[in-house]
Amino acid sequence: MESLVGGPIGDNRAMHLRDEIREQPAVVARLLARGPELVDPVAERVRRAGIEHVVIAARGTSDHAAIYAQYLWGVRNRLTVALAAPSIVTLYGVAPRFGRSLVVGISQSGASPDVIAVVAAARAQGAPTLAITNTPGSPLAETAEHVIDLGAGVERAIAATKTYTAELAVVALLSTALLADPKARRAAEGDLARVPDALERALGAAPAAEAVAAEMAEANRAIVLGRGLEYATAREWALKIKELANLFADPYSAADFQHGPVALIEPGVPVLAVAPSGTIAAGMAELLGRLRDEHGAEIAVLSDDPTIRAVGRWAIPIPDGVAEWVRPIVSIVPAQLHALALTLARGLDPERPRGLRKVTRTV
Amino acid sequence: MESLVGGPIGDNRAMHLRDEIREQPAVVARLLARGPELVDPVAERVRRAGIEHVVIAARGTSDHAAIYAQYLWGVRNRLTVALAAPSIVTLYGVAPRFGRSLVVGISQSGASPDVIAVVAAARAQGAPTLAITNTPGSPLAETAEHVIDLGAGVERAIAATKTYTAELAVVALLSTALLADPKARRAAEGDLARVPDALERALGAAPAAEAVAAEMAEANRAIVLGRGLEYATAREWALKIKELANLFADPYSAADFQHGPVALIEPGVPVLAVAPSGTIAAGMAELLGRLRDEHGAEIAVLSDDPTIRAVGRWAIPIPDGVAEWVRPIVSIVPAQLHALALTLARGLDPERPRGLRKVTRTV
Repeated sequence: MESLVGGPIGDNRAMHLRDEIREQPAVVARLLARGPELVDPVAERVRRAGIEHVVIAARGTSDHAAIYAQYLWGVRNRLTVALAAPSIVTLYGVAPRFGRSLVVGISQSGASPDVIAVVAAARAQGAPTLAITNTPGSPLAETAEHVIDLGAGVERAIAATKTYTAELAVVALLSTALLADPKARRAAEGDLARVPDALERALGAAPAAEAVAAEMAEANRAIVLGRGLEYATAREWALKIKELANLFADPYSAADFQHGPVALIEPGVPVLAVAPSGTIAAGMAELLGRLRDEHGAEIAVLSDDPTIRAVGRWAIPIPDGVAEWVRPIVSIVPAQLHALALTLARGLDPERPRGLRKVTRTV
Repeated sequence: MESLVGGPIGDNRAMHLRDEIREQPAVVARLLARGPELVDPVAERVRRAGIEHVVIAARGTSDHAAIYAQYLWGVRNRLTVALAAPSIVTLYGVAPRFGRSLVVGISQSGASPDVIAVVAAARAQGAPTLAITNTPGSPLAETAEHVIDLGAGVERAIAATKTYTAELAVVALLSTALLADPKARRAAEGDLARVPDALERALGAAPAAEAVAAEMAEANRAIVLGRGLEYATAREWALKIKELANLFADPYSAADFQHGPVALIEPGVPVLAVAPSGTIAAGMAELLGRLRDEHGAEIAVLSDDPTIRAVGRWAIPIPDGVAEWVRPIVSIVPAQLHALALTLARGLDPERPRGLRKVTRTV
């Protein structure tokens, strides 16, 4: 049971990435403590402006927080959420009419020119704008009308972890503040309050994550599946594996996957599936069973449900007792541990991913 | 110069896929001839309702037509376009407030339950709805207020080709009908009128596509890059390669690619780049030069510009003389020919892709 967390692999040397994965319970707990002061002014502005549409500009990991927002604000707040194509503004020089939209920029550094450009165009039109960033003095923060500071502390590892879970927590806090029914709001606050403890327990998945990683260290391709609220988790898991472990990890919503690339399944190409209990469970379990039985897929299941975990050749646990709508904040943690373990198992240095810088200034 | 088109490879046996690739000039010409009757009622409805937001539900290849619409309607019509997450409706049972949105479902079969569900939810709210489909009597067509029939003829190959270019042509026609300035509208009609001839010339890329395919037949991974209006082309090219040639082809917008997966470039992993002249040319040429010189990337360039083609180890031509905003209708054709040639070069049957059915009924 030696592992990344408390075990020898991680502790033989300093490693920002491992440290920042471990900081996540504290980072999210701090955000929840500041919840109302952070999100109430934004929620008030959204209500006053009669907002029904949201446009989110984000890149990389932050784009996966945007995907969580698309599903969560749709499911819980009935908002229509568009993920912006920033190059419409930056390359083609056109500002879409943002009309009665809330326009949100998400960027840990607050330095991404394309995200800033979308928020600036919206603000010039008088649309409500919000920056979600870990850098309150950044150009993005200066550009937006409202700013939510993630307060996650400096993120030193090149691969983002604690700023991702912090972004998800802000998305969940804002959803809660927008609920009209006080009883529903209190229930949501209760769900959120249990997240830091669940994050702590999620760190305990390290031994399982390492065992699974050890057995797929030789693969050069993988398929990552998720759905609904957990589609963001699949995307972020795949990105971590790509940027850290240099493995072609192709993420799909389970629905899209059936529309084409089933052909990619073959021996030696593991399927990583985010399949927790709740709304997506039955469909995911059915699909995974079929991929295993008809296509010979070798599946690693990330789940809180032992029955679904049993479908896989490998399993990584998600802590139980987490409400479905906030579970993506928790489920990414065992996936981060798996990506880190896979990186080490492949003899790569998680502190020096090939070809990456912390801030990428695309326009 | 023997080739798929007119050469021995294709003509030794019947092949729906090759035939349907060749039908595209005629399919698009027929659509353009019916242009005003098809799109004017929709444009009139959009104007009357003061629409600023569009929500599009689509899966698979049709989702790439939706991406073209997102960029084109943003750049030329200043509309904010959201790509719907259908499972919000189908799995979570929630209908977002579509407000003053036009809600569009794109599906060649018109039989995709998740696309139908989004359109039905919008119609129940009184929002304007549009079905773009090759099957006018389909459930999707029955559900929407407006229907545009692609009239592409039955698509027998499992991999969609002619219905994709037909969908793009409808997106371009609708953009044109929404232009307020009559002079701009006439210019756009002129651009569109030149597309069928360009499609005919694009079929002449077959020998180049085959030569490139022959040299990458042994690869098991590839990266596909595009940007802006041509991001849809990169996505569709990658999907065709995945579903037909069983090769992990990972598509990125050039901007997102720099935010993470540069690490994936290595010898034996070709980079396929959609990099035509115009707005995206300078940025793509700069990126490709850097990927080649600093990361050792082996690049196949799809372009109308000989200077950019020269950046690549391989090149596939796009016909010149096509206006940038309609070029995605043309640029996908050499990419389709490349995917077909790659499939044959890998000894696979393009008529029987593994694990695929023509209509996938996900919910």
